[in-house]
Amino acid sequence: MNDSSTARRVTIGVDYGTESGRVLLLNLRTGEEIAVVEVRYPHGVIDSILPSTGEDLPPDTALQDPGDYLEVLYRGIPAALAAGHVSAQEVIGLGIDFTSCTVLPVNDDGIPLCQLDLWRARPHAWVKLWKHHSAQPIADRLNEVGHDRNEEFLSRYGGRLSSEWYFPKLIEIWLEDRAIFDTMSAFVEATDWIVWHLTGSLTRAACSAGYKACWSAADGLPSRAFFEAAYPGFPEPSAKLGSDFAPPGHCAGTLRPEVAARLGLSPAVAVAVGNVDSFVSVPGAGVQDPGVFVMVVGTSICDLVIDRREVRMAGITGVVEDGILPGYFGYEAGQAAVGDMFAWFGNRLLNLGHGAGLGANWHAELEGAASAISPGQSGLVALDWWNGNRTILGDADLSGVIVGLTLATTPAELYRALFESVAYGTRRIIENFVEHDVGINGVVACGGIAERSTFMMQLLADVTGLSVTIPSSSQIPARGAALFGGLAAGSARGGFDNIEEAVNRLKPEAARHYSPTAAHMQAYEQLYEVFHALHDNLGREHVEWLHRLKQIRRSTMTAHS
Amino acid sequence: MNDSSTARRVTIGVDYGTESGRVLLLNLRTGEEIAVVEVRYPHGVIDSILPSTGEDLPPDTALQDPGDYLEVLYRGIPAALAAGHVSAQEVIGLGIDFTSCTVLPVNDDGIPLCQLDLWRARPHAWVKLWKHHSAQPIADRLNEVGHDRNEEFLSRYGGRLSSEWYFPKLIEIWLEDRAIFDTMSAFVEATDWIVWHLTGSLTRAACSAGYKACWSAADGLPSRAFFEAAYPGFPEPSAKLGSDFAPPGHCAGTLRPEVAARLGLSPAVAVAVGNVDSFVSVPGAGVQDPGVFVMVVGTSICDLVIDRREVRMAGITGVVEDGILPGYFGYEAGQAAVGDMFAWFGNRLLNLGHGAGLGANWHAELEGAASAISPGQSGLVALDWWNGNRTILGDADLSGVIVGLTLATTPAELYRALFESVAYGTRRIIENFVEHDVGINGVVACGGIAERSTFMMQLLADVTGLSVTIPSSSQIPARGAALFGGLAAGSARGGFDNIEEAVNRLKPEAARHYSPTAAHMQAYEQLYEVFHALHDNLGREHVEWLHRLKQIRRSTMTAHS
Repeated sequence: MNDSSTARRVTIGVDYGTESGRVLLLNLRTGEEIAVVEVRYPHGVIDSILPSTGEDLPPDTALQDPGDYLEVLYRGIPAALAAGHVSAQEVIGLGIDFTSCTVLPVNDDGIPLCQLDLWRARPHAWVKLWKHHSAQPIADRLNEVGHDRNEEFLSRYGGRLSSEWYFPKLIEIWLEDRAIFDTMSAFVEATDWIVWHLTGSLTRAACSAGYKACWSAADGLPSRAFFEAAYPGFPEPSAKLGSDFAPPGHCAGTLRPEVAARLGLSPAVAVAVGNVDSFVSVPGAGVQDPGVFVMVVGTSICDLVIDRREVRMAGITGVVEDGILPGYFGYEAGQAAVGDMFAWFGNRLLNLGHGAGLGANWHAELEGAASAISPGQSGLVALDWWNGNRTILGDADLSGVIVGLTLATTPAELYRALFESVAYGTRRIIENFVEHDVGINGVVACGGIAERSTFMMQLLADVTGLSVTIPSSSQIPARGAALFGGLAAGSARGGFDNIEEAVNRLKPEAARHYSPTAAHMQAYEQLYEVFHALHDNLGREHVEWLHRLKQIRRSTMTAHS
Repeated sequence: MNDSSTARRVTIGVDYGTESGRVLLLNLRTGEEIAVVEVRYPHGVIDSILPSTGEDLPPDTALQDPGDYLEVLYRGIPAALAAGHVSAQEVIGLGIDFTSCTVLPVNDDGIPLCQLDLWRARPHAWVKLWKHHSAQPIADRLNEVGHDRNEEFLSRYGGRLSSEWYFPKLIEIWLEDRAIFDTMSAFVEATDWIVWHLTGSLTRAACSAGYKACWSAADGLPSRAFFEAAYPGFPEPSAKLGSDFAPPGHCAGTLRPEVAARLGLSPAVAVAVGNVDSFVSVPGAGVQDPGVFVMVVGTSICDLVIDRREVRMAGITGVVEDGILPGYFGYEAGQAAVGDMFAWFGNRLLNLGHGAGLGANWHAELEGAASAISPGQSGLVALDWWNGNRTILGDADLSGVIVGLTLATTPAELYRALFESVAYGTRRIIENFVEHDVGINGVVACGGIAERSTFMMQLLADVTGLSVTIPSSSQIPARGAALFGGLAAGSARGGFDNIEEAVNRLKPEAARHYSPTAAHMQAYEQLYEVFHALHDNLGREHVEWLHRLKQIRRSTMTAHS
């Protein structure tokens, strides 16, 4: 930051989540979060009825309306500027992060097909949200063919690609609505689409292409021959995806004048290439060191590690060069059910918050009761597979397990067992990194549960034996996005020229540290052994048992639908 | 029944349960249940505070007050006679059945030590109820020594004796309160104590001695050398138990005149030797054929099979000659948690019946919802080990298991999974009999859940592939006890001379039959395979995992007490 003036230099970070977007104004000199405005998506998650026709949508569908994303910009940014008393000339850059792989078909002008009269009645014209899961059979087919052909790219993704990713979603359109497929000029990540809208030109992020579209700087995309083997006739994979991708912090351009005017900003504002919500949490949390295990703990857990070396290993979601921070290999792993498993317990199983007894505050009350129980006292151990296992087994057809139930088992004991199962799962993931020579020496956790649950955080410390640090910001992803806005602007305009400087300058204070307590660590050593044994027994050696239950369940549901 | 008069001939059956006793008047000619009176025990189960001192009792203690048992006689019998308009001269016999092994120390006159001022303050002077479990370490020691010495008697008990049985309870007193041990002249089953009280002389039942004190007609008691090896100095095992035992239906004597007067009966009434509640259910349900699997389905399940041959096998509680019906070998097996596991789910886990939502009738409402779910639809399988596994594993340190949980799992699905786990457990027990050449070709089920839950009974049929018959009486044990009263009286007085005649004459109608439904049988074939695999995996191959959890739990509880 070579700009020597004392004027305030501000960037905007826009964090696009599943239900809403948050606009943050960040003071680049002080790291102060000047203002935050949240805008809920008017259409939310579209998973039962298509708004344009009123038709019922098939199971596992999850769509969104791209107009909702623009609402976040046009309502959120002016509101934040007003709330923070920030003037147009103070704002030098803008960065965004988005859920991913959230993708939409657009025409040559970047207009979403679902906004065109001709196509709006077609479900496949809409945004497919990250958790749109109906392409699972396609992912299965791609994995099968990939393994048969010994496709090397799979080794960057722990040996397996997910139904949530780019090509399963694209091939689903190719199979089910060829007119949409042929009409779209591109199938773009929402994060890239917003940048296109802001700047007027399409610059695609290397980050999402690397983690979700199996692209790498060294090897490019998977070969056409691979796709041909799986889906004969499927065209060149770059046809709708493109083949040029820019690393995080790259300047995608400046604001189109008409957009700048509507936002109340200068057209000179630098716009960073798009990014992914979990990944920006690494610099957002102030982390730029290998060996730090960054966890975004919410509905699910996303784990992120950076390293100078690339290690191809099983048990991760992916490893991508420049994927998280420029100049590093970024590793991703995670757990599929966390906050939503806790919510299941209270809302769905115990039916709390619907009348008498524990009310809306049941989370805190149950957690208080759970935290009063000693490790091992309940005799319970659970496997946290309520939504399958994301890593290290990468198996969506696993399901949750509880052992140790007795007539004396209480709801608080079971609730604690669910929290413990998450901590055990985290330890398995960390051990897997260490076993593959990616050392881990501390945890930084952010996200809703990291901020709210001292109980969960202490458990993580006790079970992993590592100290857990919580940064003081509740807007970690938006901070990361704003940081990349500063990188896009560059030092000449009051931003940054390199990631190290940006992270150092904007690193949030630590709000809390959790250190492992010796007595609990020892108790959890024994309990974790049982978890680990059950994990390998039911998730590997005898994986056919849980798979068979899932198959029977599917065939029963088909028979009844 | 050679008595040719047309006068009504009535016997009394008294069924002593855990919380109350029931008095039944049975018409021996017609099988009519003339009157039933239930008397709750004023002191119930004494498991927290000793009534005589107010002192706290140690964990796993379960005592009773023998005075409560006399209340059942002196309040119940006159009330039943009045309700049924039965006159003293119509009553020719009386039989009782009791929970077992429920035992008490008495003096030479048959007076319970807890009724004497000198001893009433001592917990070990009171009745030890069947579910008094604190002698588990003693049972463990006896089993260990028995296996080391290759004690042959163990093979009659599936290789293992239980902490609930006679000698662990007696040795507990010997270890913990030697004065009580030395003072008692006998340590008697409550069933024998009541007969003693009624007749004035002690006649011990072969049935409880066989199943609970390891006695057999052929081999007598385990040797003194065995006890000496386990507990040096422990006296001759017959010292407090005696060594003469009478088979079911044997006449123990007639009513003492003062007792007869108080009850409003003739002193000529024949009193049958005492019996055990589950065992009398076999003749009570009208069963006298090998190959019929009799289930008493309530808090737990007791399974009973009779056969002309003795097969020593693992996976049963015991096989005793004349133990159930004279002239047959009686086999016992069972499941430790059934009704109390269902109650745990609603009362303890979901906290129902305490305010809004499902009220006192939650059992029926949840069962209705559970019965609407198809086999396999939930993807869940449970192992019914909430209270350990009684048979076929005979392992109290196992605990309950649920697999297949997802974010969509509902309370009704889980409730169904618990019912299914009971049916799977029953199938394992039946298969174990068949594998050991004791054929099973049908099920007769009685007890509260058999009467109430058509859902549970249909599940049993669908999972086992056998037809399930429910007798029309809700007083099956008391019918069995009354039947033995008729056998004690003999034909000369209007009763019976042999068990075949008695059972034929008094067999209750079938209230309902459940036949397996082909589609469900097929679905459960696959699900049972998963249950069976998990059962052997977690209950045998890797039994150390659940055992370790139990050990950790115990050590945590000790550390905190």
